[in-house]
Amino acid sequence: MISVIILGYGNLAYHLTNTFLKTKNINVKQVYNRSIKKIEHLKNKTLITDNLKNLEKADVYIISVSDNAIKNISSKIDLKNCFVVHTSGATSINDLKNNGRKGVFYPLQSFSKNKEVNFNEIPFCLEAQYNEDLELLKQLALLISKKIYSINSEQRKQLHLSAVFVNNFTNYMYKIGDDICNKYNIPFEILLPLIKETALKVEYLSPKEAQTGPAIRNDEITIKNHLKLLNEEQHKIYKLLTKSIQNG
Amino acid sequence: MISVIILGYGNLAYHLTNTFLKTKNINVKQVYNRSIKKIEHLKNKTLITDNLKNLEKADVYIISVSDNAIKNISSKIDLKNCFVVHTSGATSINDLKNNGRKGVFYPLQSFSKNKEVNFNEIPFCLEAQYNEDLELLKQLALLISKKIYSINSEQRKQLHLSAVFVNNFTNYMYKIGDDICNKYNIPFEILLPLIKETALKVEYLSPKEAQTGPAIRNDEITIKNHLKLLNEEQHKIYKLLTKSIQNG
Repeated sequence: MISVIILGYGNLAYHLTNTFLKTKNINVKQVYNRSIKKIEHLKNKTLITDNLKNLEKADVYIISVSDNAIKNISSKIDLKNCFVVHTSGATSINDLKNNGRKGVFYPLQSFSKNKEVNFNEIPFCLEAQYNEDLELLKQLALLISKKIYSINSEQRKQLHLSAVFVNNFTNYMYKIGDDICNKYNIPFEILLPLIKETALKVEYLSPKEAQTGPAIRNDEITIKNHLKLLNEEQHKIYKLLTKSIQNG
Repeated sequence: MISVIILGYGNLAYHLTNTFLKTKNINVKQVYNRSIKKIEHLKNKTLITDNLKNLEKADVYIISVSDNAIKNISSKIDLKNCFVVHTSGATSINDLKNNGRKGVFYPLQSFSKNKEVNFNEIPFCLEAQYNEDLELLKQLALLISKKIYSINSEQRKQLHLSAVFVNNFTNYMYKIGDDICNKYNIPFEILLPLIKETALKVEYLSPKEAQTGPAIRNDEITIKNHLKLLNEEQHKIYKLLTKSIQNG
């Protein structure tokens, strides 16, 4: 049985808490949040508190708050030799300021509160100062997911950056596609099978091998025709990405 | 029973021919290709020819060749009042130069020869000069797919352009993510669930609603940190897309 205390109650903390509560061999001992109101509904299931001085003892303290609050909250956990982890992709293990042991428990996925999360397929990127602690994080992660990776802070920073490209910027490519469709009364849903196929293709081909389109085949006629159809902003993006694909 | 003749034997023609041959109520009367060798294996299943003067009679002639060959091939079909369609996203219906009726039979998906295609989920964008011909194309498409759309040449041009963003440029975002991962010995597979989730999210949220990340939340600290990590090419792309998301 691994005992955990969750600190914070944003999107990720919400999903983690609810999954942990349902999982055998995990004991959610307590949830902390600076506003007690947001966690009051949990009081029949676990201890709740809005005071960091009232923290119980547990195997792992999981800080899941916004990146810029991690330093502050961790510095206020003054239990002796406790094991504190954060769940942030962009934050170094060294930003934890507790006196005890430190680690990272980072699930690489984007979370929204109103959508069920199945952690089973979500990769957990784990880091700890000590082997024993890393083993504990592995055990914990394996209780809710089948994908665990040992990733250090430098790698995690790069991974988080990669995620901006494959998630945020990719979504923006969809946005431009949607804008064009709207302008010409074309239902965006026509593009959904292509979007899905493009995403699934890189499960068996590298993105380099999967690259198709006018840029990679140097189809200057199509490129010229496309550029004529775009607004200024889209034009800049099309041109830069085309050039970059061709240089690539 | 709808009789068809396929002209060309590239990726799409290959998959169409093979699916049509297996489909009830479709009669593949003939396949034309300028190199007879490439289609010789079909000779037990249908008529084959490398001579446009030997075309049989059929309800629809489907030209599925590279965009720049459509004009030339269509101009050489000199059967009286035949119905000729092409399968190209980027080509106007007016680029067909046959004497008879014209149309478009465009499945919006990317095809590679060595991967099985299930047309069932692939949207068919249909266009014809006459209502009766459009109805025939609808009937034909519905025999192999459940998704059909009536799309005119102007819309199709825009749709093809959108596809460059959601498919080719999206894949390039994956490529940059992969490049970053490789540089730091991070397995790219960690990003696959996020890539999939990003693609599936726009099935129930518009891309505008689905946009997350440092750009949209104006997280200038993270943006600055990210820019420091990128090479010149990636830096330009990150900066332009971030600015564009923020203007959006």
